[in-house]
Amino acid sequence: MIDDPGTESATDTEPTVAQVGEFEVISRAVADRVQPPSTIVGPGDDAAVVAAPDGRIAASTDMLVHGRHFRLDWSSPVQIGRKAIAQNGADIAAMGARCSGFLVSLGCPADTPVRVTDGLNEGMWLEAVAAGSAIVGGDVVQSPELVISVTALGDLQGRAPVLRSGARVGDLIAYAGRLGWSAAGLALLLADMDRTGHDAVLDAHRVPVPPYRAGVGAAEAGATSLTDVSDGLLSDLGHIADASNVRMDIDPELLDIPAELRSAATAVGIDSLDWVLTGGEDHALVGTFGDHSAVPAEWTVIGRVEHLGDDRASRVTVDGRVHSGRSGWTSFESE
Amino acid sequence: MIDDPGTESATDTEPTVAQVGEFEVISRAVADRVQPPSTIVGPGDDAAVVAAPDGRIAASTDMLVHGRHFRLDWSSPVQIGRKAIAQNGADIAAMGARCSGFLVSLGCPADTPVRVTDGLNEGMWLEAVAAGSAIVGGDVVQSPELVISVTALGDLQGRAPVLRSGARVGDLIAYAGRLGWSAAGLALLLADMDRTGHDAVLDAHRVPVPPYRAGVGAAEAGATSLTDVSDGLLSDLGHIADASNVRMDIDPELLDIPAELRSAATAVGIDSLDWVLTGGEDHALVGTFGDHSAVPAEWTVIGRVEHLGDDRASRVTVDGRVHSGRSGWTSFESE
Repeated sequence: MIDDPGTESATDTEPTVAQVGEFEVISRAVADRVQPPSTIVGPGDDAAVVAAPDGRIAASTDMLVHGRHFRLDWSSPVQIGRKAIAQNGADIAAMGARCSGFLVSLGCPADTPVRVTDGLNEGMWLEAVAAGSAIVGGDVVQSPELVISVTALGDLQGRAPVLRSGARVGDLIAYAGRLGWSAAGLALLLADMDRTGHDAVLDAHRVPVPPYRAGVGAAEAGATSLTDVSDGLLSDLGHIADASNVRMDIDPELLDIPAELRSAATAVGIDSLDWVLTGGEDHALVGTFGDHSAVPAEWTVIGRVEHLGDDRASRVTVDGRVHSGRSGWTSFESE
Repeated sequence: MIDDPGTESATDTEPTVAQVGEFEVISRAVADRVQPPSTIVGPGDDAAVVAAPDGRIAASTDMLVHGRHFRLDWSSPVQIGRKAIAQNGADIAAMGARCSGFLVSLGCPADTPVRVTDGLNEGMWLEAVAAGSAIVGGDVVQSPELVISVTALGDLQGRAPVLRSGARVGDLIAYAGRLGWSAAGLALLLADMDRTGHDAVLDAHRVPVPPYRAGVGAAEAGATSLTDVSDGLLSDLGHIADASNVRMDIDPELLDIPAELRSAATAVGIDSLDWVLTGGEDHALVGTFGDHSAVPAEWTVIGRVEHLGDDRASRVTVDGRVHSGRSGWTSFESE
C-alpha cells in the first residue's frame, strides 16, 4: 500500500515518469495486486480476458481531464484515482450489473512525478476493489495534460439489463446514494472561505461513493428503469423521461436534505435544494419501481412517473412545475 | 457516409463542438449506424451490453494523443479515427480473438470543428466494421488537447487465448501483415522532401491495416504465442522472449523487403531493414508455431525460438547477434 501522498506539489528531486519510463510505471501499478478468480488473463499481455459467465458483458467508458474533471491542487492522486473508477463503476451499477473488471488508460506529461502516477494507480485499484472488482488492464502514454480514461466491465448475473426506457406511468421514482453532496463540496472549494466543519461534503466531492450494490438490488427487485446521477438529478431523470416517453415528477417534500448539506448551503448562501436537484458527480442511482413493495430498503421514494404532456420541456417536473434553475452539468458549457 | 474532409484547417464559420454541444456530437456519431446482432444494448444507455457467447471476454485499451500519436496536419480525421480503432483491434487479434465491440472516449477542445469530430467518428465506425464489429458505446468530454481512448472487446470463440508466454525452443517465428511501412511513411513526413510516388507507405502510416483474421487463423492453427507489432518487431518479440523465457532469433534472409519500402529507404537515405526490424505502428501480428506445417498461408516464417543465454540483453537476436540500432518506440523518450 502506498500512503496517500496528499495534495502538495512536486519537488525537483523526485523521479518523473519520463525518467523511469512507461514500463516501470505499469510495473509499479500491477506489482503485488491479486486478481479475482473472474480475471482469466490479467495485465501484461495484449489484452485481458475476463469471465462473462452468463454470456453477456456490460461495458461503459468515461474520460476525466485535469482542470476539467479534477484538480491536483484540490484532490490527492489517490482521491482522483478513486473518482475515475467510481464514476465508471456507477454506470455498470446503473444497468443492474456487478462490476467485473476495469481497464484504465493514463495520459500524463513527461515531467509528472512517479509519486502522482503511483497515487492515481493506487486509488484506482482501491476503488476497483471497493466495487467488488479489479484493474485488469491498462495503458500509459505521454500527453500534455493529465487524462484518465476508464472502461468498466460488468456481469449481469443472468438478469435483464435495467434500461432507461422501461419507466411506466404510475411507477414510483426512487434513488439510492447521495444527491448534492459533490456540488456542495465543489461550491466550497470554489468559494474563498473558511471550510472548517465541512469535511463530509468536501470529501464527497473528491471521492464519490456510488451505491454499487443498490444497482444489483434494484435489478433483483424488478426496477423498471435505472440510471446514475452524473450530471444532476433533473438532468439524468430527463434521460429516463426521454427514453421512456413519460414525465418524471419529483415531490420535494420527499427529499430529506441532510444536515451536512444544509450547513454547507448556509455557509455558501444558496438553497440546498438546488444542489440536490441539479448537482452532479455523486453518482447516486435513480430509477423507477412498480409499487412501494418493490422498492428495496436502501432506496428512497421521491416522486412518481406521470403522463408526458404536449411540452417535452416539462418532461421532468418538481411538484408539477419545471424547475427554474439550471438542470445539470454539461461537458462544453463555457467555464 | 461522411466524405473524408481532408487535412485542411478549420474555417471561422463552421460549427464547433461547443456550439452544438456534447449530446449533438454523440447523436451525430450514432445516427443511422446499424449494430450487429452481438450488440444486445447499443449506445444511449448507461452501458452497452455485448454478447460473450463462450463466457469470456477479451478486452484491451489504448490512448492516442494529438501531437504524439497523430497530427491533424498529416492525417484526416477519418484516417485518425481508423488508426485509433485499428491499433486496439490488433490487440484483440493478438489474443487470437475476433473483435466484438469497441468503446470510444473522445476528449477535444471546445473550438474543435464538428467536421473533425464527425470525421473521427466516421473513421472509427468504418474501421470497427472492417474489424468485423461496431462502436457500441462512448463518451465525449472537453479537453485542452485532442485525445482518443479506445477499448476493444473480443470473442475467443471457445479457443484458449494465445499468450506471449507460450513460445518454446524450436518453434518457428512468423508474422502476418506489414513491417516497417508506417515507419517509412513517418520518415517521409518528417523529411522536407518530395513525397511523390510514396503514397503506399504514407497511407500505411496514416491508417494501419492490421491482419485481423490472421490472429484467429493463428489461434486455430495452434500458434504457441502471439503479439502485435506496435512498438517494433524486435521490441515486441522481446515481450514474447521475456514472457516465455526464450531467445527469439530472426533470420534477415527470410525478411523479403517489398519494393515500396526499398524505394522509400533510398529516398530518405537509410537501410530499409532498420524500418522492418524497429518500425512500430503497422500492427502486424508476430507469433510462434510448433513447425512449418502449423504455419497458416497468410504467415511468413522469419526465424526460430532458441535457448536463452546468460545475457537477457540478447533475448532477441538477428542472425545470432544483437541488433545495433534502436529496438523500438517508447512512450516517454524525448522527442
